Amino acid sequence: MAEQNNQISLADLPLREELRGKSAYGAPQLSVANQLNTNENPYPPSPEIVEGIARRVAELGKQLNRYPDRDAVGLREALAAYVSQQTGVGVTKEQVWAANGSNEVLQQLLQAFGGPGRSAMGFVPSYSMHPILAAGTQTEFVTVERRAENRFDIDVDEALAAIDERQPNVIFITTPNNPTGNSTPLADIERILQAAPGIVIVDEAYAEFSDEPSAVGMLEQYPTKLVVSRTMSKAFDFAGGRLGYFVAHPAFIEAVMLVRLPYHLATLSQAAAEVALEHSAATLQTVAKLRQERDRVVARLRELGYDVIDSHSNFVFFGGFDCVGDSAAVWQRFLDQEVLIRDVGVAGWLRATVGLPEENDAFLAAAAKMMDD
Amino acid sequence: MAEQNNQISLADLPLREELRGKSAYGAPQLSVANQLNTNENPYPPSPEIVEGIARRVAELGKQLNRYPDRDAVGLREALAAYVSQQTGVGVTKEQVWAANGSNEVLQQLLQAFGGPGRSAMGFVPSYSMHPILAAGTQTEFVTVERRAENRFDIDVDEALAAIDERQPNVIFITTPNNPTGNSTPLADIERILQAAPGIVIVDEAYAEFSDEPSAVGMLEQYPTKLVVSRTMSKAFDFAGGRLGYFVAHPAFIEAVMLVRLPYHLATLSQAAAEVALEHSAATLQTVAKLRQERDRVVARLRELGYDVIDSHSNFVFFGGFDCVGDSAAVWQRFLDQEVLIRDVGVAGWLRATVGLPEENDAFLAAAAKMMDD
Repeated sequence: MAEQNNQISLADLPLREELRGKSAYGAPQLSVANQLNTNENPYPPSPEIVEGIARRVAELGKQLNRYPDRDAVGLREALAAYVSQQTGVGVTKEQVWAANGSNEVLQQLLQAFGGPGRSAMGFVPSYSMHPILAAGTQTEFVTVERRAENRFDIDVDEALAAIDERQPNVIFITTPNNPTGNSTPLADIERILQAAPGIVIVDEAYAEFSDEPSAVGMLEQYPTKLVVSRTMSKAFDFAGGRLGYFVAHPAFIEAVMLVRLPYHLATLSQAAAEVALEHSAATLQTVAKLRQERDRVVARLRELGYDVIDSHSNFVFFGGFDCVGDSAAVWQRFLDQEVLIRDVGVAGWLRATVGLPEENDAFLAAAAKMMDD
Repeated sequence: MAEQNNQISLADLPLREELRGKSAYGAPQLSVANQLNTNENPYPPSPEIVEGIARRVAELGKQLNRYPDRDAVGLREALAAYVSQQTGVGVTKEQVWAANGSNEVLQQLLQAFGGPGRSAMGFVPSYSMHPILAAGTQTEFVTVERRAENRFDIDVDEALAAIDERQPNVIFITTPNNPTGNSTPLADIERILQAAPGIVIVDEAYAEFSDEPSAVGMLEQYPTKLVVSRTMSKAFDFAGGRLGYFVAHPAFIEAVMLVRLPYHLATLSQAAAEVALEHSAATLQTVAKLRQERDRVVARLRELGYDVIDSHSNFVFFGGFDCVGDSAAVWQRFLDQEVLIRDVGVAGWLRATVGLPEENDAFLAAAAKMMDD
């Protein structure tokens, strides 16, 4: 490339004005002994899953010159069976839609139900992609705060007042909530559903780590309002497979078909997810282990004097370290001890993924040392 | 689901107004002996590719609980090497971006450089997803016609006048053009580049089927304007892998990183594409075969009295069947003989993919029969 082209930067391109000066999303992908920053399941897929996927790939490889099933019917059938079994609520493939991660699922929903001139409401802090996806689809993002003094629960009265005032077209409820780990009771979700003028997306990315019943049970009562989004990135040890999905009335599937990119889901992505779903019972045993570890981590942190939000997920949100330093300083001190956690930008609080027992030991040892110093 | 929920339809959802009454994109996925409607490469991946992918999957399966490389660096390096070799123009991984099909690549570019209040220009008939992607990103789509009497070439003087008048933020030039098969000479592209007030996306999805040099050679001269998009769905026998990419100044890669969904490209998608690229030399031998078949099909159709546009791609665009019937009727008559081709909505013209020799024979036999009747 010619010398003068080395001088060219992003600022020289005719980028949309609102993107100027922005920086790309992303948790640091640092290489550290204990990576507890992205809420992955630390258990690798079982040898049966790996072999099963390799076998399917060998079979399907011969068809890779053909476009994938555009509507991923087989995969949606497998997801419907899984959701029916996991939630106890029978759903069919006509009620399930799948895409490359829940990010793409949510983007499609915002394209269909949000967009320019429309708004989405979130209860923050919550999943940081919701406002980013809203911005990417030109949807105004309106926030209602979850407060530490309320243990980061949604204040439903305040929520209803905000809904009444702002009339959001889309409402996001993340439960269990990321990054705070707590759940929103179904009764609270229902009050919000009743008040919502548009659609309500209940983001259940971490549902398998919680005892709360799934909002899927309310689909029959709120067919034109409720969408429950889920992912195989968390409970399933399948973050690399990129498979998100939602469950809703079949009309919602028709709606996203208007905006989805044709052939959005690769043949191998569909097949690998199907294999992973065949082995869901075994995979979910790792979820039971992680829940035990989570409870151990929460109890120990509290013993050490940290303030920990009740967690229904595979991570813990903790504070009470003001004596040590601010979030950034404490995050760095964990990193100095080879423990990478996440500073989500909530002053006085940090998030740590529950990992393997030895990783959690390393995290807890660092946490103990910090309080001793 | 309760009885009354069966009555609910898409019209009952709070869908965006402009989507109401629309129907989903899609070529019919009918099962017919000769499927010549989606411009796939009819040759399956070689056993070496299939085995290589299965082997990589078996290795990588153990890491599927981890998120993929967010920036797909290894794959972009492999793509850069391939583009350098195929076009003769050296490019680096910093100049290459990859996503789930060229559709996602183009959507990301429109999110960054198009969007509400901005416009994109296309020379139609062309790839039918360009206006759909524009609509999905709220970008106004402005068209300039390619006319049959001009053999569907871009009338550059008319294009420059339209650019001057409409000042499009994004200009699409598909070359070789889908569905018409003809190429736009580099000199014409350059005149459009010079006039363009924003960016120019040269969509080279079918480049490997053409002898025209790639627009990649002009990147150095137009670093802030030119983006060349490509795909592994056509020349590569890899439509099921969903891998699209673009080549541009590194600043463009920074731009799409602001709008891409994090971890958009699954671990298996990245790995499978890398394996396919390792075998590109062998795969491209099928391209040579298809080019020969294409030339045979074009020559025979002309012998039969059809009007055929010069094709630099893996499909033929033909007319001259007015004596037989309109496009829809002729399309149906091909289908009646187990040959599925594509009616792209250009009156008096149809598109047929070049398939295996026996598929092309079936197509030509049906074409001959039609003229005899």
